[in-house]
Amino acid sequence: MPADLDTGMALTFVDGKPADSIPVDDRGLAYGDGVFRTLAVRAGRALLWKRHYAKLATDCRALAITAPDETLLLDDLRHITADMPDCTLKITVTRGSGGRGYAMPGTVIPRRIVAASPLPDYPAEYATQGVNVRYCAQRLALQPALAGVKHLNRLENVLARAEWQDPSVAEGLLLDSDGAVIEGTRCNLFLVEQGKLVTPDLSRCGVAGVTRDAIIEVAAKNGMACRIETVRRERLEAANEVLLVNSLIGAWPVARIEGRTWNHFETATCVRKWLHALADPSV
Amino acid sequence: MPADLDTGMALTFVDGKPADSIPVDDRGLAYGDGVFRTLAVRAGRALLWKRHYAKLATDCRALAITAPDETLLLDDLRHITADMPDCTLKITVTRGSGGRGYAMPGTVIPRRIVAASPLPDYPAEYATQGVNVRYCAQRLALQPALAGVKHLNRLENVLARAEWQDPSVAEGLLLDSDGAVIEGTRCNLFLVEQGKLVTPDLSRCGVAGVTRDAIIEVAAKNGMACRIETVRRERLEAANEVLLVNSLIGAWPVARIEGRTWNHFETATCVRKWLHALADPSV
Repeated sequence: MPADLDTGMALTFVDGKPADSIPVDDRGLAYGDGVFRTLAVRAGRALLWKRHYAKLATDCRALAITAPDETLLLDDLRHITADMPDCTLKITVTRGSGGRGYAMPGTVIPRRIVAASPLPDYPAEYATQGVNVRYCAQRLALQPALAGVKHLNRLENVLARAEWQDPSVAEGLLLDSDGAVIEGTRCNLFLVEQGKLVTPDLSRCGVAGVTRDAIIEVAAKNGMACRIETVRRERLEAANEVLLVNSLIGAWPVARIEGRTWNHFETATCVRKWLHALADPSV
Repeated sequence: MPADLDTGMALTFVDGKPADSIPVDDRGLAYGDGVFRTLAVRAGRALLWKRHYAKLATDCRALAITAPDETLLLDDLRHITADMPDCTLKITVTRGSGGRGYAMPGTVIPRRIVAASPLPDYPAEYATQGVNVRYCAQRLALQPALAGVKHLNRLENVLARAEWQDPSVAEGLLLDSDGAVIEGTRCNLFLVEQGKLVTPDLSRCGVAGVTRDAIIEVAAKNGMACRIETVRRERLEAANEVLLVNSLIGAWPVARIEGRTWNHFETATCVRKWLHALADPSV
């Protein structure tokens, strides 16, 4: 079973109550009309919670959905962590139930779904020895209105992830329709070039993740420049290091992509230390 | 209330059983990982059924989802029409329940949702006197891998439809990111140019609807040429007639878009006659 496919037990709250179903007329199902977050909970603490909540609110705003109050989500989290203090938390907010048709119902009430599942069991050496990745053939379409937002329209990711079954390939990289490297199917990317960080521009497509934002911010505080630029394959392959980042994996260095290999991961190690230090004790 | 927003009673079957909910782990909700059809049922007959089923199967194939057997859908339809002989039927097929992560679960079982709601109550003069339409600011991204498919990733349509509330505007037209006119938020388009039909090329974005396909086919049988071409605003506004088509509206002529008005609808009348004659008596 691929390490990114988790079929374990789940615990789910829908609008604050334990539930294993949602109304069939939810617009999240009908149109992908909603947003989501995936984060790690350890010892009952949702890591980088403030950042995740802020991003959830930002993404809701992009779709004109009223974000749930933070206190409601924290209540859900408390109920869940009573049973599962260590888990992957997925928070989905949909526009809510709506009649047939694209028009937003006047009185729609957003629906929140908070689901816990076991933390993924990634091999420890992914972080220390790096991972094998591939380029996906599936391209990302350019849609500035939705770029950066983690919305529920994710067929491009599904099609890209379906391109390989080989469990030794930990991730696939996605290019946009102009040929720029944007992200992995489930993570953001950083390049290291002469001691400086570069991360792909996400103004036309891609998901701007919380871990990416955190790294950009912390790099600056630590005196490491980080530029947001267009990255093409040649540039990626010429980098001193390539890092995959998200809330569950932290930062994995890339050890191989097609013919190119890397075996020095100093910056990846440094970024992982930053992320450990960042883990927010406020929840 | 806008005429395309229907909040009436619904009757829904999920996998052959009456249900008002679906499992929260459905990948249709998580990723928009599925397809749908909307069609009219009159006096217990699903209009253009053979075409709708064929298109459902084609769209499932595009996402590597196993389409439900036609006999199962016809059973659902029989149960529904016993109570609602005249209705709007929405058939949704999702990849089914799946664990967290984009990878398709090995043993996934597609889920079918068949929902009936009242037929829309459009003003009769929309067909005879034409409708007022607008251009949407929201553009369609170019994604050849999904072009033509009526999948559940429909945020572009939701955002486009949210651009106007004026109930006198019956539809909004969508351009792609290159500026070509593609479709309406919920319909396909035809232009009439010197007695010939033209419909926008949908090879890079848009939904290739059943009514559009039927009109292309029947036009040929009736000796009317129909070309599939790139259509820009100037060309649309220079056309002798513009038609909006889908399974619920049939064919509406456009009476006005911004400053341009039309008041002769001979071809629209002709196309509506073709569609009436086509109504498939096989179900």
